[in-house]
Amino acid sequence: MLTNDQLAAWDRDHFFHPSTALGAHARGETPPRVMSGGDGVFIEDRDGNRLLDAFAGLYCVNVGYGRRQIADAIAAQAQQLAYYHAYVGHGTEASITLAKMILDRAPQGMSKVFFGLGGSDANETNIKLVWYYNNILGRPEKKKIVSRWRGYHGSGLMTGSLTGLKLFHDKFDLPLAQVVHTEAPYFYRRADPSLSEAEFTAHCAAELETLIDREGPETIAAFIGEPVLGTGGLVPPPAGYWDAIQKVLDRHDILLIADEVVTGFGRLGSMFGSDHYGMRPDLITIAKGLTSAYAPLSGSIFGDRMWQVLMQGTDENGAIGHGWTYSAHPIGAAAGVANLKLIDEMGLVANAGAVGRHLRAALRDAVGDHPNVGDIRGEGMMAAVELVKDRDSRTFFDPTEKAAIRVVAALLSEGVIGRAMPQSDIVGFAPPLCLTTDEADQVATALGKAIRSVLG
Amino acid sequence: MLTNDQLAAWDRDHFFHPSTALGAHARGETPPRVMSGGDGVFIEDRDGNRLLDAFAGLYCVNVGYGRRQIADAIAAQAQQLAYYHAYVGHGTEASITLAKMILDRAPQGMSKVFFGLGGSDANETNIKLVWYYNNILGRPEKKKIVSRWRGYHGSGLMTGSLTGLKLFHDKFDLPLAQVVHTEAPYFYRRADPSLSEAEFTAHCAAELETLIDREGPETIAAFIGEPVLGTGGLVPPPAGYWDAIQKVLDRHDILLIADEVVTGFGRLGSMFGSDHYGMRPDLITIAKGLTSAYAPLSGSIFGDRMWQVLMQGTDENGAIGHGWTYSAHPIGAAAGVANLKLIDEMGLVANAGAVGRHLRAALRDAVGDHPNVGDIRGEGMMAAVELVKDRDSRTFFDPTEKAAIRVVAALLSEGVIGRAMPQSDIVGFAPPLCLTTDEADQVATALGKAIRSVLG
Repeated sequence: MLTNDQLAAWDRDHFFHPSTALGAHARGETPPRVMSGGDGVFIEDRDGNRLLDAFAGLYCVNVGYGRRQIADAIAAQAQQLAYYHAYVGHGTEASITLAKMILDRAPQGMSKVFFGLGGSDANETNIKLVWYYNNILGRPEKKKIVSRWRGYHGSGLMTGSLTGLKLFHDKFDLPLAQVVHTEAPYFYRRADPSLSEAEFTAHCAAELETLIDREGPETIAAFIGEPVLGTGGLVPPPAGYWDAIQKVLDRHDILLIADEVVTGFGRLGSMFGSDHYGMRPDLITIAKGLTSAYAPLSGSIFGDRMWQVLMQGTDENGAIGHGWTYSAHPIGAAAGVANLKLIDEMGLVANAGAVGRHLRAALRDAVGDHPNVGDIRGEGMMAAVELVKDRDSRTFFDPTEKAAIRVVAALLSEGVIGRAMPQSDIVGFAPPLCLTTDEADQVATALGKAIRSVLG
Repeated sequence: MLTNDQLAAWDRDHFFHPSTALGAHARGETPPRVMSGGDGVFIEDRDGNRLLDAFAGLYCVNVGYGRRQIADAIAAQAQQLAYYHAYVGHGTEASITLAKMILDRAPQGMSKVFFGLGGSDANETNIKLVWYYNNILGRPEKKKIVSRWRGYHGSGLMTGSLTGLKLFHDKFDLPLAQVVHTEAPYFYRRADPSLSEAEFTAHCAAELETLIDREGPETIAAFIGEPVLGTGGLVPPPAGYWDAIQKVLDRHDILLIADEVVTGFGRLGSMFGSDHYGMRPDLITIAKGLTSAYAPLSGSIFGDRMWQVLMQGTDENGAIGHGWTYSAHPIGAAAGVANLKLIDEMGLVANAGAVGRHLRAALRDAVGDHPNVGDIRGEGMMAAVELVKDRDSRTFFDPTEKAAIRVVAALLSEGVIGRAMPQSDIVGFAPPLCLTTDEADQVATALGKAIRSVLG
């Protein structure tokens, strides 16, 4: 058996990790963490640590670790047929069944699913086909995409452009020219603290309208947004937000892309965030919750309005020039079928709503009175604790103080994994949807200890 | 058990297939083909057809179908730990071991591997980090990427731009502005038939030099190319091509990205195409052959020259703002480890060279004299038969005649899967690397029958 030291050396010498300080890691200044097993909300590493993963990997292991039903489905598919492509009408029983199961669960008006591998490539598919759609409709100038500051839509060149976070733009020459950003629907950090929540919603809609007027509505193809901001800070929208945005989009014939990579399949306590907030998307991006990350699989769900035009496009121009070798990969499809069944059987959508509420209440009980806690918020099984230097004046910490990063490190030594969100001091939680109330209480208690140990 | 009719209906109603005529498929004009199993070079569908897959899926099932060693490795990993992320230095025994195995096999001078999901996202990673590299070096204007007409590098917005085929550009507003294309190294289709192979190589290098001069070498960051053109026609380079290109790139400090998604891990009869042709890449793209498609996994192998600058970049700017949720997915990593072991154990690299030669000889015997066969070419386990209206005058068919598409359909009714390559009349073969000489003879015999039945 390989020793941990041997693995650590190979890791330093050969492995380029995402979102990592590359020099520090290669020089061995940050030890590798080699993960080895898990069950339910708990994950284990090769050094024998057992941790409550209150971020579900990267908010993706929605059913929890170690679910034998999904592992067995993957194993059976691997034995039967690990791979065949989905080009030119090919499929497998698993991929076709999964397409049916997705559409059964999707909001009204959705028609077809294109399968990809991860959320980034699904959003890439979306933008590519939105452009195609407007070309087929004879509107070649209607191509710009509006995204929000603090939105997260991926890490590629186009998808990282859609993402509205500096970390993904600086030094990468992003955003690309086809993307324009509008106001983040982030009530707690609104620039004008005198605004009420309703006034802030109206402000967000007005900002969007101003942007559209400035760019010209005939140049704007689509608006993309997460029902609840994810990596940008785990921020539910202010009341009435999606209704106000939808009205602006309808007025200018702009498509709505709901990025439900995080929220799809139950995280908000509803099957889709679009239903949760009454959004009427033309396209829905799905990934993480589709397979609970047991195998890579993503999807773009196309509404009927777009699908009719895409059919016209290929009738006129021949087969669509788009596809990935691993579109609808059988292993991912088998994992997806088993995962969606398990979500139903375990009642995880309802549990996400109920235990999510309990988690936020427990967080409020544990740290709501702490002078460095400015905001506790969330929706379903998403919760954020925003740290501030002074809560009354809403003064934020200087980034060099790394307040959230230090709290998350202290939380880890209490046996709980949370996440310090970028470009802010936010401790984020997005546990597996199977979290129990006892486990929610453990998270809250550990956070209380961590905050007091770091901030007093 | 689901009936085939039930699956066909769900497929039509819900499944958006890649590279498909969407309207025709949804209306049921093209029946779905539901794949159900396979062993070795044979694949089976749910209607009981058993076919010799001489394209290995999409030239990716390199070890052949039904390899229990890989299925067992996937099953074991699924049971132990199906997922944890690789961000901030996290890994698994499988992903770290695979990184070590890849670098053990990679050409000299390569340093680290970043894991993605498919070839498109790996090339996206490459371009993003080439831009970062030149920003860290203080050369913000050095960003354009040179690709070749008929190159294939993916289907996204940037990667579809790199791809030099009309099908992936038209109606999608591609290529993006940052991509410029140069001459395809396609000797048989050279514009000036009077050129010898050596003269054509010199012409390709001169065309590149002219392009660089026109754009300004200070604006050109990288050149990307497949060692052998894949989807663009299965075309080995003319003699001396890579040496001549490499000299031009060196003269202008332009990085070389070798896209080895098709050629990596043995397809040419060498472990890498870069070694096969003496290329000295700074970056190598890997995907298909890495796992033989048993699970989605890709990689970008960074050479030491780039790696040193990337480390400097994160020392100066903090963690790299790039990553996919499914980077280094444990299921893909476990499949990769088992696959690379199997390639060694079965001696598939040598077999690809030997049986590939046999296949081309058999194709020449079977159809080399046919008046509509203009060229038979290939390298390792890649072979192409290019159809022409008239071989002496090298007159091509009109695309509306669909010559290659009809031959491939006839080949299918002979029980053999080949592929009609886009933008030409080329019947392509890229069988699993485990093909035997008997199976190669079957392919050649079937093609002979197919060509005679269609073209007389």
